[in-house]
Amino acid sequence: MGAGPVHETLAALRLVDHHCHGVVTADLDRPGFESLLTEGEAWPGISPFDSPVGVAVRRHCAPLLDLPRHAPAEEYLARRTELGAREVNRRFLAAAGTEVFCVDTGFTPDRLTAPRELAEAAGGRAYEVVRLEAVAEAVAAHGVEPDEYAETFRAAALEAVSRRGVVAVKSVAAYRTGFDLDPARPSDANVTEAARRWLAGGGRLADPVLVRQLLWTAVDLGLPLQLHTGFGDSDIRLHRVDPAHLTDWLHLTAGTIPVLLLHCWPYQRQAAYLAAVFEQVYLDVGLTLHHVGPARAGAVLAEATEITPFRKLLYSSDAYGVAEFYHLGALTFRQALAGLLQERVDADELSLPDALRIAAWAGGDNARRLYGIPPTDTDHRLPDPHLPGPDRD
Amino acid sequence: MGAGPVHETLAALRLVDHHCHGVVTADLDRPGFESLLTEGEAWPGISPFDSPVGVAVRRHCAPLLDLPRHAPAEEYLARRTELGAREVNRRFLAAAGTEVFCVDTGFTPDRLTAPRELAEAAGGRAYEVVRLEAVAEAVAAHGVEPDEYAETFRAAALEAVSRRGVVAVKSVAAYRTGFDLDPARPSDANVTEAARRWLAGGGRLADPVLVRQLLWTAVDLGLPLQLHTGFGDSDIRLHRVDPAHLTDWLHLTAGTIPVLLLHCWPYQRQAAYLAAVFEQVYLDVGLTLHHVGPARAGAVLAEATEITPFRKLLYSSDAYGVAEFYHLGALTFRQALAGLLQERVDADELSLPDALRIAAWAGGDNARRLYGIPPTDTDHRLPDPHLPGPDRD
Amino acid sequence: MGAGPVHETLAALRLVDHHCHGVVTADLDRPGFESLLTEGEAWPGISPFDSPVGVAVRRHCAPLLDLPRHAPAEEYLARRTELGAREVNRRFLAAAGTEVFCVDTGFTPDRLTAPRELAEAAGGRAYEVVRLEAVAEAVAAHGVEPDEYAETFRAAALEAVSRRGVVAVKSVAAYRTGFDLDPARPSDANVTEAARRWLAGGGRLADPVLVRQLLWTAVDLGLPLQLHTGFGDSDIRLHRVDPAHLTDWLHLTAGTIPVLLLHCWPYQRQAAYLAAVFEQVYLDVGLTLHHVGPARAGAVLAEATEITPFRKLLYSSDAYGVAEFYHLGALTFRQALAGLLQERVDADELSLPDALRIAAWAGGDNARRLYGIPPTDTDHRLPDPHLPGPDRD
Repeated sequence: MGAGPVHETLAALRLVDHHCHGVVTADLDRPGFESLLTEGEAWPGISPFDSPVGVAVRRHCAPLLDLPRHAPAEEYLARRTELGAREVNRRFLAAAGTEVFCVDTGFTPDRLTAPRELAEAAGGRAYEVVRLEAVAEAVAAHGVEPDEYAETFRAAALEAVSRRGVVAVKSVAAYRTGFDLDPARPSDANVTEAARRWLAGGGRLADPVLVRQLLWTAVDLGLPLQLHTGFGDSDIRLHRVDPAHLTDWLHLTAGTIPVLLLHCWPYQRQAAYLAAVFEQVYLDVGLTLHHVGPARAGAVLAEATEITPFRKLLYSSDAYGVAEFYHLGALTFRQALAGLLQERVDADELSLPDALRIAAWAGGDNARRLYGIPPTDTDHRLPDPHLPGPDRD
Repeated sequence: MGAGPVHETLAALRLVDHHCHGVVTADLDRPGFESLLTEGEAWPGISPFDSPVGVAVRRHCAPLLDLPRHAPAEEYLARRTELGAREVNRRFLAAAGTEVFCVDTGFTPDRLTAPRELAEAAGGRAYEVVRLEAVAEAVAAHGVEPDEYAETFRAAALEAVSRRGVVAVKSVAAYRTGFDLDPARPSDANVTEAARRWLAGGGRLADPVLVRQLLWTAVDLGLPLQLHTGFGDSDIRLHRVDPAHLTDWLHLTAGTIPVLLLHCWPYQRQAAYLAAVFEQVYLDVGLTLHHVGPARAGAVLAEATEITPFRKLLYSSDAYGVAEFYHLGALTFRQALAGLLQERVDADELSLPDALRIAAWAGGDNARRLYGIPPTDTDHRLPDPHLPGPDRD
Repeated sequence: MGAGPVHETLAALRLVDHHCHGVVTADLDRPGFESLLTEGEAWPGISPFDSPVGVAVRRHCAPLLDLPRHAPAEEYLARRTELGAREVNRRFLAAAGTEVFCVDTGFTPDRLTAPRELAEAAGGRAYEVVRLEAVAEAVAAHGVEPDEYAETFRAAALEAVSRRGVVAVKSVAAYRTGFDLDPARPSDANVTEAARRWLAGGGRLADPVLVRQLLWTAVDLGLPLQLHTGFGDSDIRLHRVDPAHLTDWLHLTAGTIPVLLLHCWPYQRQAAYLAAVFEQVYLDVGLTLHHVGPARAGAVLAEATEITPFRKLLYSSDAYGVAEFYHLGALTFRQALAGLLQERVDADELSLPDALRIAAWAGGDNARRLYGIPPTDTDHRLPDPHLPGPDRD
């Protein structure tokens, strides 16, 4: 990590990770680990270790497993197995230096830690983010009449967000339809008709009318809405998840709920534009930063913040499955932001107090303010597992 | 500012600002100033000062108000009020070092300086850019039959551009429809029909047929056409103002008028492509440079010039309302271009004479050639307010 | 060129240029040379020498013609004429340090070297890439019934790729329709109907149904498919050649043929995404690197490799016509990749062995593996013109 007061401040800052998932609790074999390392898959002859994220894992995660920097993949995997999932997870989660985790609990193809388990392993606190597609699909799975779908879904979502510790909802509309949608709230009749088709056919919620209805239900719920945008796995059609396509919908919903654009890459500048011209829009470059690794995280963050108001930038890891990503996400964020700010301080383009203020905002204060997360008042190095928190009763 | 002969040359160069607006003549209170500082609005709890452009203002404008660099927003605003609009405007306009201003006179929600006032305050000369939408909307406001709209608009535009000192026309089609338009000249019948709808309904000119007719009227006028592209306020649908969408229209109008792509961000590479393959296309990164600030202006300009022929790059501030932006626009342009060129000279990728030639071209000569603006022959440091100029009679 | 072991290794590496064209064999006059220097045209008053690629030619090619660095255009052209095409071509091709050329033989508006001539002048080996549009248009020119078009084209393509030394096929669908196509294989009836229209009307193959049929014929052929994406001349509609638009087609053809995205700029990040999530996708930034020149090649390559698996990156020059581009393409690639890797080694973000491995992969091994090109076993500095190669019998 670079030197200078901004680096030191960011290195010591306890982060708010406003969007992440759980960690796989089981031991992972090589194919299992490699498939979690990439947004693609593990292909014959093309190891995910031979990619920017794989290089970053070998460089920055190996030392936490008592290996030398740049340890070969084989040694890395062997040591990981030797230590066991529990110890590996503990080490990386502790290293992340994250105080608050806002955990998306709606995507669980693997057996993952619950938010509380995650936070305990990290010595932090957990809040929950409700994935609306998961709620809608549970409603469908439970059985519902098409003309009752909208109301049943709304009620189920309302119940889900009423649980203690829920601070936001999330949509993966990006994966289902992209954002080139009619921005208007669909009529009841249209929703019923679309629900009839979906409930008859089954499968994931991917009907454009129902996706629109889901986004408008988020408005009704009144909580901040996290939206996956940009980079993801091959289910994404990248050109359809440019957040600029949300503009009409953002006009219609102005004055209602905060909207948090997640990931954004390669549309980080489009996201920055939206954050600059819409009061309710915020952004992060989670997922992106650890996938591009420290070598490029600074460049991506610099683009993402070219015009973004400094109160609109948040931190997330979007870590899923492997504990490495909590550490790597936090590390790349700290380094990238510190590098960007310190460079400006060094060039006298930014004052040091301003730089430290921006670091504290992006590292946690913006998220705390937005989600209403209380500041911790305990010793940062010794988090109290009995700290009262939404997910701890 | 960096060191080296290219920096010195650019620092001393009297610029041609080929696209800007007037300055607000009245004193501005805090909300008034903050709302002009951003392409968004001034939101509760999120000051525009806490953004890249706000940081740049505090860093680079405060000293011109006799304040320390990075002065707090409160002090900055207090001092601004103390000095009064007239003195503040005078200081920033003089500091811009701009010899020629091409002023878009068609957007005046505030009481702004006329081109002549602006130029006099800056010790420069003013030319005028006629905004075609303003002409069309004046025609509509004055009353016209639908079947006479096209001809009346054309005649009004012709009259407007015949005024002394008019060097170009401008369109904000980007704000009204975006560029995903049928490129062909619309038929008279279609224009009449569209005019009927518009004249009955009122409002801004935003009908696709009428926007196309406006763009083709620009071709008839024979003057260079400035086109807003990319970044702007929330009226923009960013994905619809990628200038690549103009390609078919550029094919149809090849050999007629020069087309100047303004701002361009985040589509500066797309704009560069068009400038590289269409003889008539030119570009600038005005507006963008001061909004991203000196910390990022070099990066944006470097992308904008990756393949742009060096005779195709122009300077504009696109300053509107607050005098700070004339200074900041000029400063970021000088620094960014000098940094880019000097770095290449230092790496022996570019010869110093070539670098100086490119600096002179982009800083003014390209615009002078394109608009037919005569070179000044007076002492640069002591501009003569009685200099004969198109806007001075 | 920078210093350090990665630079030295890349400077010495004999490259595989997996996509290029032939060199014009005749002497070129100034208009002829300038028009080949640009993807635009040579316009009055705007010399292609006054562009990034022109600056790069004067800097990096002039010394090979015994001129000083940054020699003026006039001197450059005079010396070029003095030496004659044969000698000029020999010098630049030898300087490229390329061992293997995969030559697209389907675009020949000028009289170009055959692959074998090209390789002999360079002291390397040649393979051939069959441009499918050229095959289809030859079928049409030869005369065929609409209902036999599909089968006749397929047979002709099969025959073309059965020639010794053919390692891949290529499509310029980007130039004809862009990628916003129905991804499904078109029905026989639709192809017949489209062929009837095309064969009656003549001209280039640009019908969307026939372009789709061409892409699916590539799948049938079973060879790697090179696809022009992004940057090209003014025939391109840039927003329609974002390779992300291929996503649905890539899903449908997964498990069949490798797909190589050529050029990509300004969509290099979109291309990287596809290479990261689809097993069959590879990319290069050929053409782009020499057009942006050494001053920006590193920045573009860095974006192109942000998430690209290191086994998915290839080298191409996409040189056409002027021999300068073989040299400049190779030089910018070597410098850009070496700069990127060495910087990471210096920052301890990458180990030196890993950096050298990545350099060897991208410089040739990835292409050799993909196209089944045997490694040369001769002394790299003294290539044997009698080396057995597919194009040498």
